[in-house]
Amino acid sequence: MTADAEPGAKPDATRRALLAGAAAAGAAALVGARPGSGRIQEPAGSPTVPADATKVPGAPTSALSARAPFEQPARAPVGQVTGSSLTPIHQLSGTITPTDLQFERHHNGVPAIDPARWRLLLHGLVERPLSFTLADLRRLPSVTRIHFLECAGNGRTGYRSPQRELSPQQIDGMTANAEWTGVRVATLLAEAGARPVARWVLAEGGDAAVLSRSIPLEKMLDDALLAYAENGEALRPAAGYPVRLFLPGWEGNTCIKWIRRLEVIAQPNMSRDETSKYTDPLPNDTARRFSFVMDVKSTLTRPTFPAVLERPGWTELSGIAWSGRGKIERVDLSTDGGTSWQPAELQGPVLDKAHVRFTRMWKWDGRRTALLSRAVDETGAAQPTLAEFRARRGAGTDYHFNYIRTWVVEPDGRVFYGVDL
Amino acid sequence: MTADAEPGAKPDATRRALLAGAAAAGAAALVGARPGSGRIQEPAGSPTVPADATKVPGAPTSALSARAPFEQPARAPVGQVTGSSLTPIHQLSGTITPTDLQFERHHNGVPAIDPARWRLLLHGLVERPLSFTLADLRRLPSVTRIHFLECAGNGRTGYRSPQRELSPQQIDGMTANAEWTGVRVATLLAEAGARPVARWVLAEGGDAAVLSRSIPLEKMLDDALLAYAENGEALRPAAGYPVRLFLPGWEGNTCIKWIRRLEVIAQPNMSRDETSKYTDPLPNDTARRFSFVMDVKSTLTRPTFPAVLERPGWTELSGIAWSGRGKIERVDLSTDGGTSWQPAELQGPVLDKAHVRFTRMWKWDGRRTALLSRAVDETGAAQPTLAEFRARRGAGTDYHFNYIRTWVVEPDGRVFYGVDL
Repeated sequence: MTADAEPGAKPDATRRALLAGAAAAGAAALVGARPGSGRIQEPAGSPTVPADATKVPGAPTSALSARAPFEQPARAPVGQVTGSSLTPIHQLSGTITPTDLQFERHHNGVPAIDPARWRLLLHGLVERPLSFTLADLRRLPSVTRIHFLECAGNGRTGYRSPQRELSPQQIDGMTANAEWTGVRVATLLAEAGARPVARWVLAEGGDAAVLSRSIPLEKMLDDALLAYAENGEALRPAAGYPVRLFLPGWEGNTCIKWIRRLEVIAQPNMSRDETSKYTDPLPNDTARRFSFVMDVKSTLTRPTFPAVLERPGWTELSGIAWSGRGKIERVDLSTDGGTSWQPAELQGPVLDKAHVRFTRMWKWDGRRTALLSRAVDETGAAQPTLAEFRARRGAGTDYHFNYIRTWVVEPDGRVFYGVDL
Repeated sequence: MTADAEPGAKPDATRRALLAGAAAAGAAALVGARPGSGRIQEPAGSPTVPADATKVPGAPTSALSARAPFEQPARAPVGQVTGSSLTPIHQLSGTITPTDLQFERHHNGVPAIDPARWRLLLHGLVERPLSFTLADLRRLPSVTRIHFLECAGNGRTGYRSPQRELSPQQIDGMTANAEWTGVRVATLLAEAGARPVARWVLAEGGDAAVLSRSIPLEKMLDDALLAYAENGEALRPAAGYPVRLFLPGWEGNTCIKWIRRLEVIAQPNMSRDETSKYTDPLPNDTARRFSFVMDVKSTLTRPTFPAVLERPGWTELSGIAWSGRGKIERVDLSTDGGTSWQPAELQGPVLDKAHVRFTRMWKWDGRRTALLSRAVDETGAAQPTLAEFRARRGAGTDYHFNYIRTWVVEPDGRVFYGVDL
């Protein structure tokens, strides 16, 4: 990587541009080389990888396409009945989170539910209490939308227990982005008929935690879904099979998994899960409660710990940004520790309440520096600095950690979470 | 399903609308029922599904989220070294195809390739022959886009070997829709510098079939990608790991998997794979060749064989539409065998050269009828009828089967592929 020109900076497709093309960025220049000669053909091979894959028939068709043995992304930690596993966001590209890598968060394990016996009860302050089977829901008008889903506590480790050797998975791995399909809650409420005093809806899960949250009726009538599919297929058990509530842009815990009951009510239920948890004490002896909306946030995913930059020169900075308040308007990047900022490119389509991938080419000069990303959403909300966030929310705050993340690049190319900068 | 009002027809969110809500569509009306009483609580339970999942802790966090035992979609057929397996599109929702269910088509099996030894050679009519490692590609500017990928032969079974008992998977399962991430071929060509006589690029795979196709330079400089990720993760071996060519909207076979070589040339190579295959004899003793672009197409996915409608009444018609020429402009549906047509709803965002999900509520009266879908793309291209298609292309044509599909509903609710209507 010694070329001065930014690779791909001028991808216009004229012959002149091609003839004037910059020197290769990281590519080896060859003269007359062909596959089977020179560095193309390397020795070795292993029991599973032939030295020359063109000389032996490959594997036959299969029921499910497996990952390459060289690519084994995984959630972590495993084995927690009450706990969470985290999405390896630093190993992912684009915006869609592979369904089997989507983070988990459950309060008493993942229940096993027979879809033929599953029912959703809709009752309380309604004209007509109703019960729906899964087949009932699937006959109703469906909608499909791409949205992120994030735990309210995402970012807590990076804030409360910072260490240099933390990856984006460990800091911000409680977010995922997927295509959700289901029925609007409004459709069911129209059938049941909410009474004039109705203001909230208690949503209750059928897991062993019987997690419940009170949701304003207004959100339920807006974009709330009863989702039965994710990324094209039936929800997986850890994601709420057979049906979960999905509230675009809102805290993950409000998107009640394994949903079994919606009770239309006049006042919030003040359930255990919205008082002992998900209410957030502040330094001034007040508390934030019903802090539903996830704030604007971004994080670099590459280069970040544990990645190592091979050598100085051009490389792509890449990350994800999202906001529960709407679309991401812009992401700015700093490659000098926050002194100067340049706009990143947003890879479209930029969708409402969804992860967006941002990128920018960067030429590292080999010196110690720090990389920062700062997202702004369409409402004008921007990520605060760590100092601003700490001043406002205190050292012990528990949720909604949307301060600007910092990644430190050392002269040897190693990259660390920027706790000490 | 006895209600006359279309469920969800008026999902506007005012209290008046709720109070005036239509009677329940397929939902059981209850009075005072709660979970644990009445039909909500049913007997039984199995070794893996407890009678009441709220009473026992669930499963702990895991490295990868597994599917529910009740949901086991799969590709078929399996075991073909030279052949294909098909996406179960009739079991899917939304537009994103789960990565492990994406159809396969390979001519000599799925090769095992070590990404550390993989190289891409770019040579021929260029100023600077180059070789790229996977790390080289990942340092270059990336792009991410959602596009369909379809085999040119998709639909052949439904046209050449029609039977009533064919599912959408068996007829049209050689299509998939995913988010692709990679580097523009134009970026690499700008580094290498194509010479003035360059007009085509030969793309060659590193599998045991060494599949190759000649691609017009114009397409390579436009939206062609060297894709290394799909739906957020590294390509799987069956999809071309570690890198494939991806040509949005073009025949799947041109999107060379396991790519190892791009040779810039002046004339098409006339390789085996573009002469003995993928050239299509027509009735008038001519042949279509280099018929790269996939035509506008649609198919219902629900209800279709082997689904059975439980009873007359409202249900949702749902399907997918796509075109290699751009965005889908509209999809019309007929529920009376093609006599009358009504517009379907397109579930946005409607993306360029991507599957779009269409839906429309339908009230079945219990009589025999036929369901048809007809897509029109933004260029004005529309699906032909089966008779129009047959007259133009002949009975023995091999590729690009985009005639209108028909699904017959029998009075007993069974649904069949409409070969005899």
